[in-house]
Amino acid sequence: MAILHHHAFCPHSRYVRLLLGEYGYEPTLREVRPWERRQSFLILNPAGETPVLEVSGPLHPDGEAAGDARLTLAGAQVISEYLDELLGERRPEQRLMPAGLAARAETRRLTCWFNEKFFDEVTSYLCTEKIYKRFMASELGGGPPDMNGVRAARNNVRYHLRYIGFLLRNRPFLAGERLTTADLAAAAHLSCVDYLGDVPWSEDEAAAAWYARIKARPSFRTLLQDLVPGMAPAPGYARLEP
Amino acid sequence: MAILHHHAFCPHSRYVRLLLGEYGYEPTLREVRPWERRQSFLILNPAGETPVLEVSGPLHPDGEAAGDARLTLAGAQVISEYLDELLGERRPEQRLMPAGLAARAETRRLTCWFNEKFFDEVTSYLCTEKIYKRFMASELGGGPPDMNGVRAARNNVRYHLRYIGFLLRNRPFLAGERLTTADLAAAAHLSCVDYLGDVPWSEDEAAAAWYARIKARPSFRTLLQDLVPGMAPAPGYARLEP
Repeated sequence: MAILHHHAFCPHSRYVRLLLGEYGYEPTLREVRPWERRQSFLILNPAGETPVLEVSGPLHPDGEAAGDARLTLAGAQVISEYLDELLGERRPEQRLMPAGLAARAETRRLTCWFNEKFFDEVTSYLCTEKIYKRFMASELGGGPPDMNGVRAARNNVRYHLRYIGFLLRNRPFLAGERLTTADLAAAAHLSCVDYLGDVPWSEDEAAAAWYARIKARPSFRTLLQDLVPGMAPAPGYARLEP
Repeated sequence: MAILHHHAFCPHSRYVRLLLGEYGYEPTLREVRPWERRQSFLILNPAGETPVLEVSGPLHPDGEAAGDARLTLAGAQVISEYLDELLGERRPEQRLMPAGLAARAETRRLTCWFNEKFFDEVTSYLCTEKIYKRFMASELGGGPPDMNGVRAARNNVRYHLRYIGFLLRNRPFLAGERLTTADLAAAAHLSCVDYLGDVPWSEDEAAAAWYARIKARPSFRTLLQDLVPGMAPAPGYARLEP
Protein backbone atom coordinates (compact mmCIF):
# COMPACT_ATOMS: atom_id res chain seq x y z
CA MET A 1 0.00 0.00 0.00
CA ALA A 2 2.88 2.33 0.87
CA ILE A 3 6.61 1.64 0.76
CA LEU A 4 8.74 4.46 2.10
CA HIS A 5 12.38 4.59 1.04
CA HIS A 6 13.83 6.64 3.85
CA HIS A 7 16.62 7.23 6.31
CA ALA A 8 15.65 7.17 9.99
CA PHE A 9 17.40 10.51 10.58
CA CYS A 10 16.52 12.22 7.31
CA PRO A 11 14.13 14.94 8.56
CA HIS A 12 12.16 14.98 5.30
CA SER A 13 11.59 11.23 5.62
CA ARG A 14 10.39 11.75 9.19
CA TYR A 15 8.00 14.41 7.92
CA VAL A 16 6.45 11.92 5.48
CA ARG A 17 6.14 9.26 8.20
CA LEU A 18 4.22 11.82 10.29
CA LEU A 19 1.93 12.74 7.38
CA LEU A 20 1.12 9.08 6.73
CA GLY A 21 0.69 8.42 10.46
CA GLU A 22 -1.82 11.26 10.82
CA TYR A 23 -3.86 9.76 7.97
CA GLY A 24 -3.65 6.36 9.67
CA TYR A 25 -1.19 4.65 7.32
CA GLU A 26 1.91 2.79 8.43
CA PRO A 27 4.31 2.43 5.47
CA THR A 28 6.70 -0.44 4.95
CA LEU A 29 10.09 1.13 5.59
CA ARG A 30 13.14 0.50 3.39
CA GLU A 31 16.34 2.14 4.59
CA VAL A 32 18.39 4.05 2.04
CA ARG A 33 21.84 5.54 2.47
CA PRO A 34 21.52 8.26 -0.16
CA TRP A 35 25.26 9.01 -0.15
CA GLU A 36 25.92 5.53 -1.64
CA ARG A 37 24.01 6.59 -4.80
CA ARG A 38 22.88 3.04 -5.61
CA GLN A 39 21.49 2.51 -9.09
CA SER A 40 18.31 0.85 -7.79
CA PHE A 41 17.49 3.99 -5.80
CA LEU A 42 18.46 6.43 -8.57
CA ILE A 43 15.92 4.70 -10.81
CA LEU A 44 13.20 5.54 -8.27
CA ASN A 45 14.45 9.09 -7.81
CA PRO A 46 17.05 10.50 -10.21
CA ALA A 47 17.68 13.28 -7.67
CA GLY A 48 19.12 10.57 -5.40
CA GLU A 49 17.42 11.91 -2.28
CA THR A 50 15.11 10.50 0.38
CA PRO A 51 12.16 10.29 0.89
CA VAL A 52 10.58 8.31 -1.94
CA LEU A 53 7.12 6.84 -1.46
CA GLU A 54 5.69 4.04 -3.62
CA VAL A 55 1.92 3.93 -3.37
CA SER A 56 -0.58 1.29 -4.49
CA GLY A 57 -4.11 0.14 -3.69
CA PRO A 58 -6.13 2.76 -1.79
CA LEU A 59 -3.21 5.21 -1.93
CA HIS A 60 -2.91 4.92 -5.73
CA PRO A 61 -4.72 7.64 -7.76
CA ASP A 62 -6.81 4.89 -9.39
CA GLY A 63 -7.52 3.20 -6.04
CA GLU A 64 -8.20 -0.51 -5.99
CA ALA A 65 -8.80 -0.38 -9.76
CA ALA A 66 -5.04 0.09 -10.14
CA GLY A 67 -4.50 -3.55 -9.16
CA ASP A 68 -0.82 -4.11 -8.40
CA ALA A 69 0.30 -0.89 -10.10
CA ARG A 70 2.57 1.37 -8.07
CA LEU A 71 3.09 5.10 -8.39
CA THR A 72 6.44 6.51 -7.29
CA LEU A 73 6.45 9.88 -5.53
CA ALA A 74 9.83 11.56 -4.99
CA GLY A 75 10.48 14.27 -2.43
CA ALA A 76 8.71 15.57 0.67
CA GLN A 77 6.85 18.38 -1.08
CA VAL A 78 5.55 16.16 -3.88
CA ILE A 79 4.37 13.54 -1.37
CA SER A 80 2.79 16.12 0.91
CA GLU A 81 0.75 17.78 -1.87
CA TYR A 82 -0.19 14.37 -3.28
CA LEU A 83 -1.59 13.14 0.04
CA ASP A 84 -3.55 16.38 0.48
CA GLU A 85 -5.04 16.04 -3.00
CA LEU A 86 -5.82 12.33 -2.62
CA LEU A 87 -7.08 12.23 0.96
CA GLY A 88 -7.63 15.78 2.16
CA GLU A 89 -11.04 16.46 0.69
CA ARG A 90 -12.31 12.98 1.51
CA ARG A 91 -11.26 13.26 5.15
CA PRO A 92 -11.82 16.85 6.26
CA GLU A 93 -11.41 16.00 9.96
CA GLN A 94 -7.88 14.66 9.37
CA ARG A 95 -6.88 17.11 6.64
CA LEU A 96 -3.42 18.58 7.23
CA MET A 97 -3.93 21.67 5.07
CA PRO A 98 -6.67 24.25 5.69
CA ALA A 99 -9.40 24.78 3.11
CA GLY A 100 -9.09 28.54 2.38
CA LEU A 101 -6.55 29.81 -0.14
CA ALA A 102 -4.93 32.36 2.18
CA ALA A 103 -4.61 29.83 4.99
CA ARG A 104 -3.18 27.26 2.60
CA ALA A 105 -0.57 29.81 1.48
CA GLU A 106 0.42 30.49 5.11
CA THR A 107 0.63 26.75 5.82
CA ARG A 108 2.84 26.20 2.78
CA ARG A 109 5.05 29.16 3.69
CA LEU A 110 5.76 27.66 7.10
CA THR A 111 6.08 24.10 5.81
CA CYS A 112 8.72 25.38 3.36
CA TRP A 113 10.32 27.36 6.17
CA PHE A 114 11.16 24.15 7.99
CA ASN A 115 11.71 21.81 5.05
CA GLU A 116 13.97 24.28 3.26
CA LYS A 117 15.26 27.11 5.47
CA PHE A 118 15.55 25.20 8.77
CA PHE A 119 17.05 22.31 6.79
CA ASP A 120 19.65 24.53 5.09
CA GLU A 121 20.55 26.29 8.33
CA VAL A 122 20.26 23.50 10.91
CA THR A 123 19.34 19.89 10.09
CA SER A 124 21.41 19.56 6.94
CA TYR A 125 24.56 20.36 8.93
CA LEU A 126 23.74 18.47 12.10
CA CYS A 127 22.43 15.27 10.49
CA THR A 128 25.30 15.14 8.00
CA GLU A 129 28.10 16.02 10.42
CA LYS A 130 26.94 14.14 13.51
CA ILE A 131 25.04 11.16 12.06
CA TYR A 132 25.57 10.41 8.36
CA LYS A 133 29.35 10.90 8.47
CA ARG A 134 29.64 8.08 11.05
CA PHE A 135 28.38 5.66 8.42
CA MET A 136 29.86 7.10 5.24
CA ALA A 137 32.98 5.52 3.79
CA SER A 138 35.86 7.97 4.07
CA GLU A 139 36.12 8.26 0.28
CA LEU A 140 32.46 9.41 0.26
CA GLY A 141 33.10 12.12 2.85
CA GLY A 142 32.79 10.12 6.08
CA GLY A 143 34.81 10.85 9.20
CA PRO A 144 34.67 13.11 12.25
CA PRO A 145 32.20 16.02 12.24
CA ASP A 146 33.24 19.46 11.02
CA MET A 147 32.71 21.37 14.26
CA ASN A 148 32.37 24.74 12.48
CA GLY A 149 29.23 23.50 10.75
CA VAL A 150 27.92 22.00 13.99
CA ARG A 151 28.47 25.25 15.90
CA ALA A 152 26.78 27.35 13.20
CA ALA A 153 23.76 25.01 13.18
CA ARG A 154 23.51 25.02 17.00
CA ASN A 155 23.49 28.78 16.89
CA ASN A 156 20.90 28.94 14.09
CA VAL A 157 18.46 26.65 15.90
CA ARG A 158 18.00 29.33 18.58
CA TYR A 159 16.39 31.90 16.31
CA HIS A 160 14.15 29.27 14.75
CA LEU A 161 13.00 28.32 18.26
CA ARG A 162 12.21 31.98 18.97
CA TYR A 163 10.26 32.18 15.70
CA ILE A 164 8.19 29.14 16.72
CA GLY A 165 7.53 30.81 20.08
CA PHE A 166 6.53 34.02 18.28
CA LEU A 167 4.04 32.17 16.04
CA LEU A 168 2.51 30.41 19.05
CA ARG A 169 1.77 33.66 20.88
CA ASN A 170 -1.45 34.04 18.90
CA ARG A 171 -2.16 30.53 17.68
CA PRO A 172 -2.32 27.04 19.22
CA PHE A 173 -0.57 25.53 16.17
CA LEU A 174 2.11 27.01 13.93
CA ALA A 175 -0.16 27.96 11.00
CA GLY A 176 -3.41 28.58 12.90
CA GLU A 177 -6.14 26.92 14.92
CA ARG A 178 -5.47 23.37 13.75
CA LEU A 179 -2.65 20.93 13.25
CA THR A 180 -1.18 21.29 9.74
CA THR A 181 1.77 20.13 7.68
CA ALA A 182 3.71 23.08 9.15
CA ASP A 183 3.63 21.55 12.66
CA LEU A 184 4.68 18.17 11.32
CA ALA A 185 7.54 19.59 9.23
CA ALA A 186 8.83 21.64 12.17
CA ALA A 187 8.54 18.70 14.58
CA ALA A 188 10.19 16.29 12.13
CA HIS A 189 13.26 18.53 11.84
CA LEU A 190 13.37 19.36 15.54
CA SER A 191 13.15 15.66 16.45
CA CYS A 192 16.45 15.00 14.67
CA VAL A 193 18.12 17.91 16.46
CA ASP A 194 16.56 16.82 19.75
CA TYR A 195 18.04 13.31 19.41
CA LEU A 196 21.42 15.02 19.33
CA GLY A 197 20.60 17.15 22.38
CA ASP A 198 21.05 20.36 20.39
CA VAL A 199 17.69 22.09 20.98
CA PRO A 200 17.93 24.66 23.81
CA TRP A 201 14.32 24.07 24.91
CA SER A 202 14.71 26.14 28.08
CA GLU A 203 15.05 29.26 25.91
CA ASP A 204 11.42 29.14 24.76
CA GLU A 205 8.71 27.65 26.95
CA ALA A 206 5.93 28.04 24.38
CA ALA A 207 7.95 26.18 21.74
CA ALA A 208 8.83 23.45 24.25
CA ALA A 209 5.18 22.97 25.27
CA TRP A 210 4.04 22.86 21.63
CA TYR A 211 6.72 20.25 20.77
CA ALA A 212 5.70 18.10 23.77
CA ARG A 213 2.12 18.14 22.44
CA ILE A 214 3.13 17.18 18.90
CA LYS A 215 5.57 14.52 20.11
CA ALA A 216 2.81 12.87 22.13
CA ARG A 217 0.70 12.20 19.02
CA PRO A 218 0.43 8.54 17.97
CA SER A 219 1.97 9.42 14.56
CA PHE A 220 5.24 10.17 16.38
CA ARG A 221 5.54 6.85 18.17
CA THR A 222 7.63 4.79 15.76
CA LEU A 223 10.01 7.69 14.99
CA LEU A 224 11.02 7.99 18.62
CA GLN A 225 12.05 4.33 18.73
CA ASP A 226 14.66 4.67 15.96
CA LEU A 227 18.24 4.74 17.17
CA VAL A 228 21.56 5.74 15.69
CA PRO A 229 23.72 2.63 16.20
CA GLY A 230 26.34 3.41 18.82
CA MET A 231 24.83 6.78 19.78
CA ALA A 232 22.15 7.03 22.46
CA PRO A 233 19.54 9.80 22.19
CA ALA A 234 19.81 12.84 24.46
CA PRO A 235 17.93 12.52 27.79
CA GLY A 236 14.25 13.34 27.38
CA TYR A 237 14.21 12.66 23.62
CA ALA A 238 11.54 9.94 23.77
CA ARG A 239 9.92 10.96 27.07
CA LEU A 240 6.23 11.76 26.60
CA GLU A 241 5.13 13.10 29.98
CA PRO A 242 5.84 16.84 30.34
CA MET B 1 -3.59 43.85 -8.62
CA ALA B 2 -0.14 42.25 -8.28
CA ILE B 3 3.03 43.75 -6.85
CA LEU B 4 6.09 41.55 -7.22
CA HIS B 5 9.03 42.20 -4.92
CA HIS B 6 11.81 40.64 -6.91
CA HIS B 7 15.35 40.81 -8.20
CA ALA B 8 15.78 40.81 -11.98
CA PHE B 9 18.34 37.97 -11.76
CA CYS B 10 16.76 35.97 -8.96
CA PRO B 11 15.66 32.84 -10.86
CA HIS B 12 12.71 32.22 -8.52
CA SER B 13 11.47 35.76 -9.18
CA ARG B 14 11.77 35.13 -12.92
CA TYR B 15 9.75 31.94 -12.49
CA VAL B 16 6.91 33.91 -10.87
CA ARG B 17 7.01 36.54 -13.63
CA LEU B 18 6.59 33.71 -16.16
CA LEU B 19 3.68 32.17 -14.23
CA LEU B 20 1.89 35.52 -14.06
CA GLY B 21 2.68 36.24 -17.71
CA GLU B 22 1.19 32.92 -18.83
CA TYR B 23 -2.02 33.80 -16.98
CA GLY B 24 -2.00 37.22 -18.63
CA TYR B 25 -0.98 39.35 -15.64
CA GLU B 26 1.82 41.90 -15.64
CA PRO B 27 2.83 42.67 -12.06
CA THR B 28 4.16 45.98 -10.82
CA LEU B 29 7.82 45.25 -10.13
CA ARG B 30 9.64 46.45 -7.02
CA GLU B 31 13.33 45.64 -6.91
CA VAL B 32 14.72 44.14 -3.71
CA ARG B 33 18.32 43.48 -2.83
CA PRO B 34 17.71 40.65 -0.38
CA TRP B 35 21.27 40.78 0.99
CA GLU B 36 20.55 44.23 2.48
CA ARG B 37 17.94 42.63 4.78
CA ARG B 38 15.80 45.80 4.99
CA GLN B 39 13.18 45.86 7.72
CA SER B 40 10.39 46.80 5.30
CA PHE B 41 11.07 43.65 3.28
CA LEU B 42 11.51 41.37 6.30
CA ILE B 43 8.01 42.38 7.41
CA LEU B 44 6.66 41.06 4.09
CA ASN B 45 8.76 37.91 4.26
CA PRO B 46 10.56 37.03 7.51
CA ALA B 47 12.67 34.59 5.49
CA GLY B 48 14.19 37.64 3.76
CA GLU B 49 14.06 36.07 0.30
CA THR B 50 12.62 37.03 -3.07
CA PRO B 51 10.07 36.60 -4.62
CA VAL B 52 7.18 38.05 -2.63
CA LEU B 53 3.88 38.72 -4.37
CA GLU B 54 1.19 41.02 -2.99
CA VAL B 55 -2.18 40.29 -4.57
CA SER B 56 -5.44 42.25 -4.54
CA GLY B 57 -8.62 42.61 -6.61
CA PRO B 58 -9.15 39.68 -8.99
CA LEU B 59 -6.01 37.96 -7.70
CA HIS B 60 -7.17 38.13 -4.05
CA PRO B 61 -8.92 34.99 -2.71
CA ASP B 62 -12.02 37.11 -2.04
CA GLY B 63 -11.85 38.72 -5.48
CA GLU B 64 -13.28 42.19 -5.97
CA ALA B 65 -15.15 41.79 -2.65
CA ALA B 66 -11.77 42.16 -0.91
CA GLY B 67 -11.75 45.86 -1.80
CA ASP B 68 -8.26 47.27 -1.21
CA ALA B 69 -7.13 44.33 0.92
CA ARG B 70 -3.86 42.71 -0.07
CA LEU B 71 -2.65 39.19 0.57
CA THR B 72 1.11 38.63 0.81
CA LEU B 73 2.51 35.42 -0.69
CA ALA B 74 6.13 34.58 0.10
CA GLY B 75 8.25 32.21 -1.94
CA ALA B 76 8.07 30.68 -5.41
CA GLN B 77 6.40 27.45 -4.33
CA VAL B 78 3.71 29.19 -2.28
CA ILE B 79 2.94 31.58 -5.14
CA SER B 80 2.91 28.81 -7.74
CA GLU B 81 0.45 26.61 -5.80
CA TYR B 82 -1.69 29.65 -4.98
CA LEU B 83 -2.04 30.67 -8.62
CA ASP B 84 -2.93 27.11 -9.59
CA GLU B 85 -5.62 26.96 -6.89
CA LEU B 86 -7.02 30.40 -7.70
CA LEU B 87 -6.88 30.36 -11.48
CA GLY B 88 -6.15 26.83 -12.63
CA GLU B 89 -9.62 25.33 -12.47
CA ARG B 90 -11.25 28.46 -13.86
CA ARG B 91 -8.95 28.57 -16.85
CA PRO B 92 -8.23 25.00 -17.92
CA GLU B 93 -6.75 26.08 -21.25
CA GLN B 94 -4.06 28.17 -19.50
CA ARG B 95 -3.57 25.90 -16.50
CA LEU B 96 0.10 25.28 -15.74
CA MET B 97 -0.43 22.06 -13.78
CA PRO B 98 -2.10 18.97 -15.23
CA ALA B 99 -5.38 17.71 -13.79
CA GLY B 100 -4.52 14.10 -12.85
CA LEU B 101 -2.84 13.32 -9.55
CA ALA B 102 0.04 11.30 -10.99
CA ALA B 103 0.77 13.96 -13.63
CA ARG B 104 0.64 16.68 -10.97
CA ALA B 105 3.18 14.75 -8.90
CA GLU B 106 5.52 14.47 -11.89
CA THR B 107 5.11 18.19 -12.64
CA ARG B 108 5.91 19.10 -9.04
CA ARG B 109 8.91 16.75 -8.96
CA LEU B 110 10.43 18.52 -11.96
CA THR B 111 9.45 22.00 -10.79
CA CYS B 112 11.26 21.25 -7.50
CA TRP B 113 14.16 19.79 -9.46
CA PHE B 114 14.85 23.19 -11.01
CA ASN B 115 13.77 25.47 -8.17
CA GLU B 116 15.74 23.50 -5.59
CA LYS B 117 18.32 21.14 -7.06
CA PHE B 118 19.33 23.19 -10.11
CA PHE B 119 19.33 26.26 -7.87
CA ASP B 120 21.58 24.62 -5.24
CA GLU B 121 23.95 23.24 -7.87
CA VAL B 122 23.98 26.00 -10.50
CA THR B 123 22.04 29.28 -10.22
CA SER B 124 22.72 29.93 -6.54
CA TYR B 125 26.46 29.94 -7.25
CA LEU B 126 26.43 31.73 -10.59
CA CYS B 127 23.94 34.48 -9.69
CA THR B 128 25.63 35.15 -6.34
CA GLU B 129 29.21 35.03 -7.56
CA LYS B 130 28.84 36.73 -10.93
CA ILE B 131 25.94 39.15 -10.39
CA TYR B 132 24.92 39.84 -6.77
CA LYS B 133 28.50 40.23 -5.50
CA ARG B 134 29.05 43.13 -7.92
CA PHE B 135 26.40 45.10 -6.02
CA MET B 136 26.96 43.89 -2.47
CA ALA B 137 28.89 46.08 -0.06
CA SER B 138 32.16 44.35 0.81
CA GLU B 139 31.08 43.96 4.46
CA LEU B 140 28.04 42.02 3.21
CA GLY B 141 30.16 39.65 1.14
CA GLY B 142 30.59 41.67 -2.07
CA GLY B 143 33.70 41.51 -4.22
CA PRO B 144 35.17 39.42 -7.02
CA PRO B 145 33.60 36.02 -7.79
CA ASP B 146 34.87 32.87 -6.11
CA MET B 147 35.96 31.03 -9.26
CA ASN B 148 35.79 27.59 -7.57
CA GLY B 149 32.05 28.03 -7.13
CA VAL B 150 31.69 29.32 -10.69
CA ARG B 151 33.60 26.36 -12.13
CA ALA B 152 31.57 23.84 -10.12
CA ALA B 153 28.31 25.43 -11.29
CA ARG B 154 29.45 25.51 -14.94
CA ASN B 155 30.23 21.85 -14.69
CA ASN B 156 26.94 21.00 -13.00
CA VAL B 157 24.86 22.75 -15.66
CA ARG B 158 26.00 20.14 -18.19
CA TYR B 159 24.31 17.18 -16.55
CA HIS B 160 21.13 19.17 -16.02
CA LEU B 161 21.13 19.97 -19.73
CA ARG B 162 21.50 16.27 -20.51
CA TYR B 163 18.62 15.51 -18.15
CA ILE B 164 16.41 18.03 -19.99
CA GLY B 165 17.38 16.41 -23.28
CA PHE B 166 16.57 12.98 -21.82
CA LEU B 167 13.10 14.12 -20.70
CA LEU B 168 12.38 15.60 -24.13
CA ARG B 169 13.12 12.36 -25.95
CA ASN B 170 9.57 11.17 -25.25
CA ARG B 171 7.70 14.37 -24.55
CA PRO B 172 7.32 17.80 -26.18
CA PHE B 173 7.47 19.54 -22.77
CA LEU B 174 9.42 18.59 -19.65
CA ALA B 175 6.54 17.05 -17.70
CA GLY B 176 4.42 15.79 -20.59
CA GLU B 177 2.29 16.85 -23.53
CA ARG B 178 1.68 20.42 -22.38
CA LEU B 179 3.51 23.42 -20.98
CA THR B 180 3.65 23.24 -17.17
CA THR B 181 5.33 24.96 -14.24
CA ALA B 182 8.27 22.58 -14.79
CA ASP B 183 9.11 24.20 -18.16
CA LEU B 184 8.82 27.68 -16.68
CA ALA B 185 10.97 26.85 -13.66
CA ALA B 186 13.66 25.28 -15.84
CA ALA B 187 13.60 28.17 -18.33
CA ALA B 188 13.68 30.79 -15.56
CA HIS B 189 16.85 29.29 -14.09
CA LEU B 190 18.46 28.67 -17.47
CA SER B 191 17.76 32.26 -18.56
CA CYS B 192 19.97 33.57 -15.73
CA VAL B 193 22.77 31.19 -16.67
CA ASP B 194 22.29 32.03 -20.36
CA TYR B 195 22.71 35.76 -19.65
CA LEU B 196 26.13 34.88 -18.28
CA GLY B 197 26.94 32.75 -21.34
CA ASP B 198 27.38 29.63 -19.19
CA VAL B 199 24.94 27.22 -20.88
CA PRO B 200 26.75 24.88 -23.32
CA TRP B 201 23.75 24.70 -25.65
CA SER B 202 25.69 22.91 -28.37
CA GLU B 203 25.94 19.85 -26.09
CA ASP B 204 22.22 19.10 -26.32
CA GLU B 205 20.21 20.02 -29.40
CA ALA B 206 16.86 18.91 -27.99
CA ALA B 207 17.33 21.06 -24.89
CA ALA B 208 18.40 24.03 -27.03
CA ALA B 209 15.36 23.71 -29.30
CA TRP B 210 12.99 23.39 -26.33
CA TYR B 211 14.52 26.51 -24.68
CA ALA B 212 14.19 28.50 -27.93
CA ARG B 213 10.46 27.60 -27.98
CA ILE B 214 9.90 28.61 -24.36
CA LYS B 215 11.93 31.81 -24.71
CA ALA B 216 9.78 32.88 -27.67
CA ARG B 217 6.62 32.91 -25.54
CA PRO B 218 5.18 36.38 -24.82
CA SER B 219 5.53 35.73 -21.06
CA PHE B 220 9.33 35.82 -21.54
CA ARG B 221 9.49 39.20 -23.27
CA THR B 222 10.05 41.56 -20.34
CA LEU B 223 12.58 39.25 -18.65
CA LEU B 224 14.86 39.34 -21.65
CA GLN B 225 15.01 43.14 -21.53
CA ASP B 226 16.46 43.28 -18.01
CA LEU B 227 20.15 44.06 -17.85
CA VAL B 228 22.85 43.78 -15.23
CA PRO B 229 24.29 47.32 -15.07
CA GLY B 230 27.77 47.27 -16.53
CA MET B 231 27.50 43.68 -17.83
CA ALA B 232 26.08 42.95 -21.28
CA PRO B 233 24.28 39.64 -21.86
CA ALA B 234 26.03 36.86 -23.74
CA PRO B 235 25.44 36.88 -27.53
CA GLY B 236 22.13 35.25 -28.44
CA TYR B 237 20.61 35.72 -24.98
CA ALA B 238 17.62 37.78 -26.17
CA ARG B 239 17.56 36.52 -29.79
CA LEU B 240 14.23 34.92 -30.67
CA GLU B 241 14.76 33.50 -34.15
CA PRO B 242 16.38 30.04 -34.07
